[in-house]
Amino acid sequence: MGGDFAPLEAIKGACLSKNAFPDVHIVLYGDKKVIEGIAQSDSQSLEGISIVHCSEVIEMGEHPVKAIASKRDSSIFRGFMDLASNQIHGFLSAGNTGAMLVGSIQILKSIVGIDRPSLLTTVPKPSGNHGIVLDVGANADNKPEHLQQFALLGSIYAEAILKKSNPKVGLVNIGEENEKGSILSRAANQLLRNTQQIDFIGNVEGREIFSDKHDVLVCDGFTGNVMVKIIEGFYYTFSKRGVKDDFLDMLNFKNHGGGLILGVTAPVVVGHGISKGPTFVKMFELVKNSIESDFCSKVGEAFSILHAKNADQSNG
Amino acid sequence: MGGDFAPLEAIKGACLSKNAFPDVHIVLYGDKKVIEGIAQSDSQSLEGISIVHCSEVIEMGEHPVKAIASKRDSSIFRGFMDLASNQIHGFLSAGNTGAMLVGSIQILKSIVGIDRPSLLTTVPKPSGNHGIVLDVGANADNKPEHLQQFALLGSIYAEAILKKSNPKVGLVNIGEENEKGSILSRAANQLLRNTQQIDFIGNVEGREIFSDKHDVLVCDGFTGNVMVKIIEGFYYTFSKRGVKDDFLDMLNFKNHGGGLILGVTAPVVVGHGISKGPTFVKMFELVKNSIESDFCSKVGEAFSILHAKNADQSNG
Repeated sequence: MGGDFAPLEAIKGACLSKNAFPDVHIVLYGDKKVIEGIAQSDSQSLEGISIVHCSEVIEMGEHPVKAIASKRDSSIFRGFMDLASNQIHGFLSAGNTGAMLVGSIQILKSIVGIDRPSLLTTVPKPSGNHGIVLDVGANADNKPEHLQQFALLGSIYAEAILKKSNPKVGLVNIGEENEKGSILSRAANQLLRNTQQIDFIGNVEGREIFSDKHDVLVCDGFTGNVMVKIIEGFYYTFSKRGVKDDFLDMLNFKNHGGGLILGVTAPVVVGHGISKGPTFVKMFELVKNSIESDFCSKVGEAFSILHAKNADQSNG
Repeated sequence: MGGDFAPLEAIKGACLSKNAFPDVHIVLYGDKKVIEGIAQSDSQSLEGISIVHCSEVIEMGEHPVKAIASKRDSSIFRGFMDLASNQIHGFLSAGNTGAMLVGSIQILKSIVGIDRPSLLTTVPKPSGNHGIVLDVGANADNKPEHLQQFALLGSIYAEAILKKSNPKVGLVNIGEENEKGSILSRAANQLLRNTQQIDFIGNVEGREIFSDKHDVLVCDGFTGNVMVKIIEGFYYTFSKRGVKDDFLDMLNFKNHGGGLILGVTAPVVVGHGISKGPTFVKMFELVKNSIESDFCSKVGEAFSILHAKNADQSNG
């Protein structure tokens, strides 16, 4: 029921995904009558797709914590409950991002060693490679340890989902030298240099955003959110000016398939509210890849090692 | 003596500026023999230009505080001394930015009510207008009061230098609503809403960077530096791809004429190290405009009002 074009585009996406991934069993959470009515009037076949009827909807503008607490028969709440009890193996929505984050934290378990879930954005590069940036807004204020956690999460993601071996991790900073930057970025730099589980390449300045020197860019959620929104602004400005360029087209965020919520025990994907049917297929694909690559277990294992090392260090 | 192509491009810039602004008396600070030799071999006439001989040079990579403390016969130190004693009325360099900032703070007086100097970048817009962003890296860690100071400085700059009446000030943030954002941006939002000397339009997201809704964008120096460097990266990436677009060309930072150091008692301009002759002309023009518009006095007056109001408020 989530997204600016709900539920039609979600239904279209489910039907397209059913054909694209015939081994996946799709379950729709929402108002059964509304879903069936819209599917019928749009000539979409729901054969092979299950529906779990939910009488409530968490709207796009609702306060996430309040909505999760009060709307126990909403599609978001019900989906998380079924995910937590392993009745479904992944969950996606183009609805209220805040509610999806709150649901992830409150209904799923957090992975031990991860303080807060985070969100990443995939950044295309002119070379054809893809990098990632995180956090991009799940967190507004971060400590150095959070950036260490983002670095490890991003590194595992690049390896498991983007199939990049030994991904290179950079820290977004305002100078290349280790001693440059803010209090946060200087402390994070030092922490990342001492994190053996990642291949840390050092500080990366904003102008290197599309470079192949790094596969994972780590920053606080405020900086990351500003960065990805500036890219959105570029795309919008230059496409509106009629600039034709293959790489510019790749920056069209409307086609991006949403992002995995990182740090929780099961695959959850949140998409842009403006997502249309084909974008939902990308979201389904990301959930599928996360399940098949056993992403969440890999994160759990890596963080138990990091957690043990950090505990060792603080015990001297 | 500063910049990647020093002193040739600075000399070329001075000669071009002498012709462009015949009422300005130009003084070069540097090694007299080197300057005269290079001018002669490049057939540049130094007629009408004064030279103050300085035996030392602060190099691009030197530690700013140490360099200012030890190199008392460097062109940067000598220039600031003459500026402080009113023998020259403005000062510009494409040399060590850190040394220019340290010189501004230590040798010039800071304007009362301003905690730290800041740097701005002019951002062109597809409409043909120009906006500004500050701080863009003079500060790595800021408090809400600093952002209030940047807002007032930017507003005065937009009015005095860009000739924009009632400039609109926005706060870079990760959501449009007042209550969104980091601890810093939420506190700054509240402070800016209560600052009567500026026309505050609220939070602005990264995607609105080229919008005409705002004339001045305020943020901490870390965020601002990342923002402007992403614009650099974008220009570089797309111009390298052969994209032809008038607005893209305007983002070429090599043509930007440097920035005024804001918050000190006399006009000081720092340019990119890569500046060539014609870029120095823009830097000269900015210094000239700052002197003629009496920018520093206007800042002094505005901050004495802000300072008095803030003192009133904290006294209840």
